[in-house]
Amino acid sequence: MNEHLQQLTQWLQDQQLDIAYISNPTNISYFSGFFQDPEERVTALFVFPDHDPFLFTPALSIQEVKRSGWTYDVQGYLDHEDPFGLIGDAIRSRVGHPAQWAIEKDDLPVYRYDAIRAQFPDATFPADASRFIEQKKLIKSPDEIALLEAAGQEADAAFAAGFAALHTGVTEQAVVAEINYAMMKQGVMSMSFDTIVQAGPNAANPHGGPELNQVQPGQMVLFDLGTVHQDYDSDATRTVAFGQVGEREREIHAVCLEANLAAMDAAKPGVTAASLDKIARDIITKAGYGEYFNHRLGHGIGTSTHEFPSIMEGNDMELRPGMCFSIEPGIYVPGFAGVRIEDCIHITENGNEPFTHTQKTLQVIEP
Amino acid sequence: MNEHLQQLTQWLQDQQLDIAYISNPTNISYFSGFFQDPEERVTALFVFPDHDPFLFTPALSIQEVKRSGWTYDVQGYLDHEDPFGLIGDAIRSRVGHPAQWAIEKDDLPVYRYDAIRAQFPDATFPADASRFIEQKKLIKSPDEIALLEAAGQEADAAFAAGFAALHTGVTEQAVVAEINYAMMKQGVMSMSFDTIVQAGPNAANPHGGPELNQVQPGQMVLFDLGTVHQDYDSDATRTVAFGQVGEREREIHAVCLEANLAAMDAAKPGVTAASLDKIARDIITKAGYGEYFNHRLGHGIGTSTHEFPSIMEGNDMELRPGMCFSIEPGIYVPGFAGVRIEDCIHITENGNEPFTHTQKTLQVIEP
Repeated sequence: MNEHLQQLTQWLQDQQLDIAYISNPTNISYFSGFFQDPEERVTALFVFPDHDPFLFTPALSIQEVKRSGWTYDVQGYLDHEDPFGLIGDAIRSRVGHPAQWAIEKDDLPVYRYDAIRAQFPDATFPADASRFIEQKKLIKSPDEIALLEAAGQEADAAFAAGFAALHTGVTEQAVVAEINYAMMKQGVMSMSFDTIVQAGPNAANPHGGPELNQVQPGQMVLFDLGTVHQDYDSDATRTVAFGQVGEREREIHAVCLEANLAAMDAAKPGVTAASLDKIARDIITKAGYGEYFNHRLGHGIGTSTHEFPSIMEGNDMELRPGMCFSIEPGIYVPGFAGVRIEDCIHITENGNEPFTHTQKTLQVIEP
Repeated sequence: MNEHLQQLTQWLQDQQLDIAYISNPTNISYFSGFFQDPEERVTALFVFPDHDPFLFTPALSIQEVKRSGWTYDVQGYLDHEDPFGLIGDAIRSRVGHPAQWAIEKDDLPVYRYDAIRAQFPDATFPADASRFIEQKKLIKSPDEIALLEAAGQEADAAFAAGFAALHTGVTEQAVVAEINYAMMKQGVMSMSFDTIVQAGPNAANPHGGPELNQVQPGQMVLFDLGTVHQDYDSDATRTVAFGQVGEREREIHAVCLEANLAAMDAAKPGVTAASLDKIARDIITKAGYGEYFNHRLGHGIGTSTHEFPSIMEGNDMELRPGMCFSIEPGIYVPGFAGVRIEDCIHITENGNEPFTHTQKTLQVIEP
C-alpha cells in the first residue's frame, strides 16, 4: 500500500470512521495512482480502516486501471447500469453497512450524495475528507518538490516560446498557440490551465483570457501559464513591454515588482500567510494602486493549481518548510493595462526557493 | 430577459419554487451570457419567480461580467470574505427567506449545499434544476444547430490537420500538438476536450489518451477531437490506416463502419434511443466483437460534450427533431487495435443530418 493510501487508512482508524469515498479525480490519482477525468460517468475510490480498498470505474476504463499499477480490486460498470446500486452491493459484500462515512464535501455533488444515502439509509457523514486531504497536501515531500521544480523549468521554457512569438499584429490567441505547440513538441502532455496571453487593456481583466486582439508596440503583455509534470503543476506570470511603453506602464510594473520581491524576501517559516499578503499589499496601496489589486497574494500549488495554503488576509497560518504556493501581486487598471508577476515557491528551513527563474525586471521585447 | 432565463423563471413559477441557485459555469453562461471557470472560487446565478436575478462572482470578475452584456445586478466578493455569508445577505435583502429551492444536484458540492443550508435553516430543496436543464437543452433551436454545424466544420478541418501530420515515427502527442496548433491558428479559441490520437494497441484503451508512442506503418490510428464554437461543441472520431494494415484491422473497421451507417440510417423521429443502440450493437455482436464494444452508442451534445440524450440500452425515450447526439460504435481488442467511428447528428423532421463530413470508409494515409 503506498504512503498516501496508508495515511488515509490511518486517519480512518484514528477518527473511528468506517469508510472514505474519494470522488475527485485528482485525489483518486493521489491515493491510487490511477487518473482519469470520467466526465459525467462515475469513478470512485473506497477506502476502509481494516479492509482492502477498491476502485469503481466505467467498464471501458478497466484496462487503464490495470496499466496504472493499481493492485487491489477494480469493479467496472456499463453505461446502462446503475452505478450507485452496484457501488452499494460492492460495499455491502465487503464490509456490510458502514455507519460513519468520510466524503469529499468540496467535490461530491448533492445528486451522488443522495444516491449513496439511498443505498445506506443509516449512514452518517461526520467527516469531510476534503479537509483531511488539503491538510495532508499542505507540506510537500522532497520528491514532490523535485516534480514541482521540473514543472517550473517547463514554465520557464514556455515563457521563452511566448516572448519569441510576439510580433506586431499577432493575436493573443496566436501567441497562445505558439506556446502550447512548443511545449507539446517538447513532450509536455498538458498545460496545467488554459494559457493566458493578454495585451494592453485586456490584461486589466485578471480573470479574462486571450482574445483575437492584435498585439501592438507600446503595450504591456501579460503571460500566465503552467504545465503538468507527472501530475504536478507549474503556474507563473510575467508581464513584458512590447517595444517602448509609457511612464505609467513602467511605474505600475515597478510597483508590482517591488511588491513581489518584498514578499519573496519575507516568505520563511514562522511568518503568517496574512502578513505575507499584507507586505505586498501595503507596497501597492502606498503607491496608490491598492484598489487595483483585487485578489489574494497567492494560492497553494501541487497536484492542482489552486490548493492550500491561501495567502490572504485573515489566514493566520504560519508558513512551514515544504509549503508550496504562489506569490502573485497584480495591478489592473481598467481600460489601461494590467501587470502581474508570479512565481510559485517552496518554503525551506530558512527562507524559500522559487520554481521559476525567468527574468522579473521589466523585459522589453523589440517589435 | 433572454429566452433561456425567461423559461427558467417560468419553471420556478409553475413549480411554486422561490429561488433557483445555478452553480455550473456552463449553465450560468447558458442563462446569463457570462462564462467563467472560477476554479475554487464561487460564481453563482440566483433566479427568482418574481424578482430580478443576480450574479455573484469573485470581485476580480466584475469587469468581465459587465463586458458580457449582463444587465442585472452583479455582486462581487474578495478572496478573504465569506462568500456564503454575503450570498445569504444578498438574497435576504432582495426576497427575505426563500423556502423552496431549486439547486443543480449534479453540480453543487455538499460543502456549498451545507453552507446554503446554514444561511437558510428552514429551506427545503424539493427541485433538481439539473433535471430541468437537461430536459430544456434536449431540443436545440435552429440557431443552436447552426453553431453545432460551425463547430463540426472545425472538427473536419482538425481531422485534415491530423491526417497531414502522420508520418513514420511521429509520436501520438506530437500529432495532437499539430492538430491543436492548426486549429488555434485558424482562430479556434479552445478544443472541446483534450484531443485524442492513439495508434495501434493504444487505441484499444477507449478512455486512454495520447502518449509518446511512435506511430508505425501498418497501424490503425484513432483520432477523437472537437472544438468549441461560441460555446457549442463538436466531437467526432475517425480511425485511419497508416500504410497497409492487416486483414483483421480492415475487418474490424468494416464492422464498425457498418454499425455506424446502420445507426445513421435509422436515426429519425419516433425511434427510441435504446433501439438505435441495439441496431449498432447487434451488427457488432453478430460479427463476433460484441464484448469489445463496451460503451453506449452515443451521448447528447450542445454546450457540453456529454449531455442528454444518452443513446443506450434502457433509454426508451423517442427521438425528436432538434435532438443532437453522437453515434459512435467502437471495437477495442486489447493488445491489438481499437476502431471508433463517430459523428454527431441532429434529428430532422424525417431523418438526421451529421455535423461532420470527413470520409468514413477506411482512409489509408501513405507513410
